[in-house]
Amino acid sequence: MKAGELAVRLGGTVEGEDVELFACAGLEEARAGEVSFCKDAKHAKLVAETKASAILLPRDWQSGAPCTIIRVGDPDTACMVAAELFAPPPPERAAGIHPTAIVAPGVKIGADVHIGAYTVIEAGAEIGDGAVIEAQVFIGERCKVGAKTHIYPQVTLREGTVLGRNVILHCGVRLGGDGYGYSTTFEGGMPKIEKIPQLGVVEIADNVEIGSNTTIDRARVGRTYIGPHTKIDNLVQIGHNVKVAGYSGIIAQAGVAGSTQIGTGCLIWAQAGISGHIKIADGVQVGPQAGVPQSLDGTQKYVIGTPATSMKELAAITLAPKMLAKLRAEVKLLKSEIALLKAQM
Amino acid sequence: MKAGELAVRLGGTVEGEDVELFACAGLEEARAGEVSFCKDAKHAKLVAETKASAILLPRDWQSGAPCTIIRVGDPDTACMVAAELFAPPPPERAAGIHPTAIVAPGVKIGADVHIGAYTVIEAGAEIGDGAVIEAQVFIGERCKVGAKTHIYPQVTLREGTVLGRNVILHCGVRLGGDGYGYSTTFEGGMPKIEKIPQLGVVEIADNVEIGSNTTIDRARVGRTYIGPHTKIDNLVQIGHNVKVAGYSGIIAQAGVAGSTQIGTGCLIWAQAGISGHIKIADGVQVGPQAGVPQSLDGTQKYVIGTPATSMKELAAITLAPKMLAKLRAEVKLLKSEIALLKAQM
Amino acid sequence: MKAGELAVRLGGTVEGEDVELFACAGLEEARAGEVSFCKDAKHAKLVAETKASAILLPRDWQSGAPCTIIRVGDPDTACMVAAELFAPPPPERAAGIHPTAIVAPGVKIGADVHIGAYTVIEAGAEIGDGAVIEAQVFIGERCKVGAKTHIYPQVTLREGTVLGRNVILHCGVRLGGDGYGYSTTFEGGMPKIEKIPQLGVVEIADNVEIGSNTTIDRARVGRTYIGPHTKIDNLVQIGHNVKVAGYSGIIAQAGVAGSTQIGTGCLIWAQAGISGHIKIADGVQVGPQAGVPQSLDGTQKYVIGTPATSMKELAAITLAPKMLAKLRAEVKLLKSEIALLKAQM
Repeated sequence: MKAGELAVRLGGTVEGEDVELFACAGLEEARAGEVSFCKDAKHAKLVAETKASAILLPRDWQSGAPCTIIRVGDPDTACMVAAELFAPPPPERAAGIHPTAIVAPGVKIGADVHIGAYTVIEAGAEIGDGAVIEAQVFIGERCKVGAKTHIYPQVTLREGTVLGRNVILHCGVRLGGDGYGYSTTFEGGMPKIEKIPQLGVVEIADNVEIGSNTTIDRARVGRTYIGPHTKIDNLVQIGHNVKVAGYSGIIAQAGVAGSTQIGTGCLIWAQAGISGHIKIADGVQVGPQAGVPQSLDGTQKYVIGTPATSMKELAAITLAPKMLAKLRAEVKLLKSEIALLKAQM
Repeated sequence: MKAGELAVRLGGTVEGEDVELFACAGLEEARAGEVSFCKDAKHAKLVAETKASAILLPRDWQSGAPCTIIRVGDPDTACMVAAELFAPPPPERAAGIHPTAIVAPGVKIGADVHIGAYTVIEAGAEIGDGAVIEAQVFIGERCKVGAKTHIYPQVTLREGTVLGRNVILHCGVRLGGDGYGYSTTFEGGMPKIEKIPQLGVVEIADNVEIGSNTTIDRARVGRTYIGPHTKIDNLVQIGHNVKVAGYSGIIAQAGVAGSTQIGTGCLIWAQAGISGHIKIADGVQVGPQAGVPQSLDGTQKYVIGTPATSMKELAAITLAPKMLAKLRAEVKLLKSEIALLKAQM
Repeated sequence: MKAGELAVRLGGTVEGEDVELFACAGLEEARAGEVSFCKDAKHAKLVAETKASAILLPRDWQSGAPCTIIRVGDPDTACMVAAELFAPPPPERAAGIHPTAIVAPGVKIGADVHIGAYTVIEAGAEIGDGAVIEAQVFIGERCKVGAKTHIYPQVTLREGTVLGRNVILHCGVRLGGDGYGYSTTFEGGMPKIEKIPQLGVVEIADNVEIGSNTTIDRARVGRTYIGPHTKIDNLVQIGHNVKVAGYSGIIAQAGVAGSTQIGTGCLIWAQAGISGHIKIADGVQVGPQAGVPQSLDGTQKYVIGTPATSMKELAAITLAPKMLAKLRAEVKLLKSEIALLKAQM
């Protein structure tokens, strides 16, 4: 698309050569043929150095640019609109079952379902209308996939997993693996470790999205449950029998141990760890890398550190050496004053 | 199954409607058609609010319930028995090789082996009697899979991996990837990073279970070894040349760096990190999120924090701000007393 | 290979039985038929206890060994040479497309390319000369794979991913998944969480290696970029729009949040976490489990702890309880001295 046409579409005006553009990119990464954006004069240096062929700038931008300028009302929004104009359409996943997909007899398949190459669907499964199941997916016995749910390649659903509507599972998601459950007894001093049967399932409510390579274990009994509109990032671990009420976020590499309950509207930041058998109240945020050993009743809206505490208390721990040095100086002063007093007596 | 029949099977007695039941679930999650359980009067409120159709309660339960009651000796145990009664049988993995499995000529396959759809087994591999290898698995050259070992879908074993008997590998396990090994030299100020060949293998002993998406790297030379009865959870990382003696547990998202040795009967809790080239003595527990930079000789049976220390020392660090405040108050008092003394002289 | 032949190949001399050897292994793990090595008299006890059939020792080794001895100049180097002699050749990946691979019409495939069983390559993709794409891989629309790049089994590349030359992707790597991006608005008190379209791609430069089950998200707009010669370990998470300049290392289970820039020659140690929208200067090292909330300008070459600080400051925090105890004792002494002074007045 020419810069002139893009300007028309964005309601902007062009200055400079009517270059051909094919993509959007950030100021520092942009290459020839790409359009970048900047809303703020404080980035004028990055604008001056950009390799972009065109740039979206505010109407009152003063500092010029080394390429074609497109002046618009709001460069941020304009860039997102431009990005959607340039973006190739997402891969088409037309309704139909690829001839190499292996679907067990009796599996119920709704209308307009896409099933990709080399996908395996076992007996008793049900696939809702408009679901997209991409290539190389494994769907075990009696799984249910809700309408319009999208499963990317190489996801595995162990038997009995239930997915709601509009769920998105990214590549490598593992649902329904056996939870970590063993009983250890001792016979003549030697440990005997026995596997506890994991008889429950995983149930994912509507509008949940789960990132690449995240793992969610099946319940020991009953269900591990992820409530509606919960968004889970990559490489997260959710233990058996965990319940997430809904409208919560769990960021990359965080972990939630078995049987813990997470309330509505919580945010668990990256690499945080939450112990088993506890409750996190509605709306609580657990900071990055925090370790939560006990239930949080919502008195504190944000916890951080290990063991998790308030931002203020964590800062106090971090500042302790400085406070100590100050106090040590004071004590030293007192010592000399006492010595002086003694000498005067 | 009717409540009455369930009661007979559990040696209990029924009060209320003879409802149809099809599954077990926890008090808070139970739905119509499910039976729940409670052993303790302190959860009477949850019992009163349960949506279960029936509930397993102790014989002397006084507080009633909003559904059919089945009185039993031990509700916990009864629930586990009931769960096994209700649980659908695990998916049948009958002996046989799926016609789409690609098994290289000369691969040795024992008796009663199941090999699933789209699984690939390369030359020189050996599969023991009764092994179950599910769909979409990759088994590289010269791998050995012991008798009765169960490999879930989408596991990859790189060439030369050895699995013992009764091993369980959950979906997405990666064994035998190249370890992180490079040599860096400088030529004219520029770094030259070269890959060190990773020539060893991974060897997994009998009765080991490994959770979803866990990764274990092949040795640089020799073998990365996981000893018998070790239980590894999801998303764990084990570096090259690590040795785990056996009867140990490694919980989700923990990591063990290269060449480290872990003794018998250790427990490495979730998200803990253990440095490379160190030794953890038999029976030591490393707490959740702990970071272990040095060998642990067993003097401390439980370490926690980063760098890992005793629970007592970690508590002292956490409490330092409180102790500081107290000491500061004392110093302030001393100051005023000295001022008073001075004035009196 | 006989010990005598091995000695000839390594330029060494044999003492003892001319045993048959088939592999190298460490002193403690070696078994019958394996050759081990030791360069240092301080490990004489391990040598005395080794189960190896032969051992590589320095020419001036005094303490003997319980097996055949091969004396060499440098046992470490000799062992690496021996390991390469014994190592079976890596699995052959001859040029050719497996008949079960599904390659969309129009995909450009270079010379001498290997494409394994059950791999799926979608429309518009390009595969460079000499690339090896193993079994069960998924390569989405318009992906580009550079010459001599090696993709191990069960990797997924979402649409538009670009790989340079000599890239290595280990099993289970996920490139191009949607980043974690949502906008939340409130309608009548209820949150409305909407997915922000992730329109960019992932671009991997030449000579990058990425470990098993690592995930790298596609950019929101533009590209998530991993620069040349960067080596990423297993189970690492890289968020959308991250830029890694090149010649850097990122060790297992570390995470880098969205839009962060990492300079040239950085080393991010295991389980470290780096916040979003910050910059890490060239050559900085982030220690294991460190949490970096703010940009690092290179003033400190090594940071550690959460929030990340210098080694010295982290040590001061750890030592605070000890310093406190000492100060408390001093204050107690001052108290008694003051009491004495008062009594004397």
